[in-house]
Amino acid sequence: MSDFRSERLAVVGVGLIGGSFARALREAGRVGTVVGCGRDAMHLEEAHRLGVIDEATVDPAAAVRGADFVLVAVPVGAMEPVFAAMRETLPPGAVVTDAGSTKRSVIAAAEAAFGTLPGGFVPGHPIAGTEHSGVAASFAGLFRDRRVILTPTAATEPAALDRVRAAWEAVGARTTEMDAVHHDEVLAATSHLPHVLAYTLVDTLARMAERTEIFEYAAGGFADFTRIASSSPEMWADIVAANETALLPVLERYIADLEELRTAIAEDDRDAIRARFDRAKAARDAFSGTKPGV
Amino acid sequence: MSDFRSERLAVVGVGLIGGSFARALREAGRVGTVVGCGRDAMHLEEAHRLGVIDEATVDPAAAVRGADFVLVAVPVGAMEPVFAAMRETLPPGAVVTDAGSTKRSVIAAAEAAFGTLPGGFVPGHPIAGTEHSGVAASFAGLFRDRRVILTPTAATEPAALDRVRAAWEAVGARTTEMDAVHHDEVLAATSHLPHVLAYTLVDTLARMAERTEIFEYAAGGFADFTRIASSSPEMWADIVAANETALLPVLERYIADLEELRTAIAEDDRDAIRARFDRAKAARDAFSGTKPGV
Repeated sequence: MSDFRSERLAVVGVGLIGGSFARALREAGRVGTVVGCGRDAMHLEEAHRLGVIDEATVDPAAAVRGADFVLVAVPVGAMEPVFAAMRETLPPGAVVTDAGSTKRSVIAAAEAAFGTLPGGFVPGHPIAGTEHSGVAASFAGLFRDRRVILTPTAATEPAALDRVRAAWEAVGARTTEMDAVHHDEVLAATSHLPHVLAYTLVDTLARMAERTEIFEYAAGGFADFTRIASSSPEMWADIVAANETALLPVLERYIADLEELRTAIAEDDRDAIRARFDRAKAARDAFSGTKPGV
Repeated sequence: MSDFRSERLAVVGVGLIGGSFARALREAGRVGTVVGCGRDAMHLEEAHRLGVIDEATVDPAAAVRGADFVLVAVPVGAMEPVFAAMRETLPPGAVVTDAGSTKRSVIAAAEAAFGTLPGGFVPGHPIAGTEHSGVAASFAGLFRDRRVILTPTAATEPAALDRVRAAWEAVGARTTEMDAVHHDEVLAATSHLPHVLAYTLVDTLARMAERTEIFEYAAGGFADFTRIASSSPEMWADIVAANETALLPVLERYIADLEELRTAIAEDDRDAIRARFDRAKAARDAFSGTKPGV
């Protein structure tokens, strides 16, 4: 059982992830005051009205003053200015973690902003989310039975790592540790590439003459398939740009595989088509037992 | 209210679609005897044991003898030999429809098998299904509130069209009519292309060194996205091969769009990435109201 507690929690970026984290800790009775920070005062007001945060500020420097735990849950492209803004006021001993979908870029942003990586900084990535965004979509159960990947740096202090692990366990998640480079490769394949494919599919179809009928007759997995194309474009453009190094090779491999299949279709090579589909189904079925219910 | 009734229904191909059609008509009290036909006597025995069919035969010629309504629900690549086999024994006045996912190829198969297209032949395509296949996965509610696209030929008699329409309405579906060429274009985009992309994604990832972790950390829509890669490879290889004419152009357009996005990522052109994602989300959100619950 996790013994996490924060007397003063700062959540910078009170959206789906930040809002759900605050709600879950409050519901578990693990938090004193929650300070919410974001660019948009109206969103903060909404978060306050929903009872997600107790105090609100648009200034990260003010948000982290006196905080013992800080979650930065902003788009990965906005991490560096946020870290830079909190540099002077972050209490020594405070633990800082983030919820960014890419880890090398967030570590680089922290290094650039802080000069050297703080011992209290524990990069993290909760593998949770929906296609909805914003604090109104947040809920306490978002992280229950989900995985959180932590990618501690060489500078990360063991006590800080323990505390971040305990925080995620307190909201029902399971934590694992992984090298940041490896995290970025795995996530490029499992999450970033599928988003790129789904966005592109919807975009391709939406520019066809038959688009109205296409969306009307969409069925058989198409709705599931394209659901992720309703995710936040800002957030995903950031992720894709931030994880270019890991994403490009797997995207290129995918395009090459798709080209090969296209050739097989053009050449009426039914056996080659069938062999690929057989291989994919076997892999999907073999691995589907290993996935948590996501 | 549909007044459909069949005294002797022949279902050639007693899988998910054929089995569900027979179950639904029986549940609605719209059918006398159901004759099931398939290549595999064991599957037919299972269908009989499940109460889906009353009589079984592996010979389409025997199956349609005395039938007033015939549903051919075999993979599209198997349509022609099935039609050819039933040619001599199909009673005059019997209505024949099919459940193939491509319509030009099925019409060509009927023309080749019958010599000229029968007046009682009504090509059809129920937009329903799951990633499961086989009679064990069939259920009476499969077609409820789903669409069935009928693509009558120039030879199709109005009375036959009416009867097929009534049959689908009796099992809870809504029918629409469409030109076969147009059907194949719309389905290439909404169904065949997404299956091709999903199979390829799973295949690409399954051949990567990190495949175990990739499938373990799969989340955020990935499971939904790849669910369709568990569909029957035989059926889908047939569909893709049969609808090459309509599928290739949309697949090529997709590859070109993906290449452009790859270039934008490689060139760090975050605005270009963002513009595509914005456009996709806007299209997805705008059209998501028009989709039936699929």
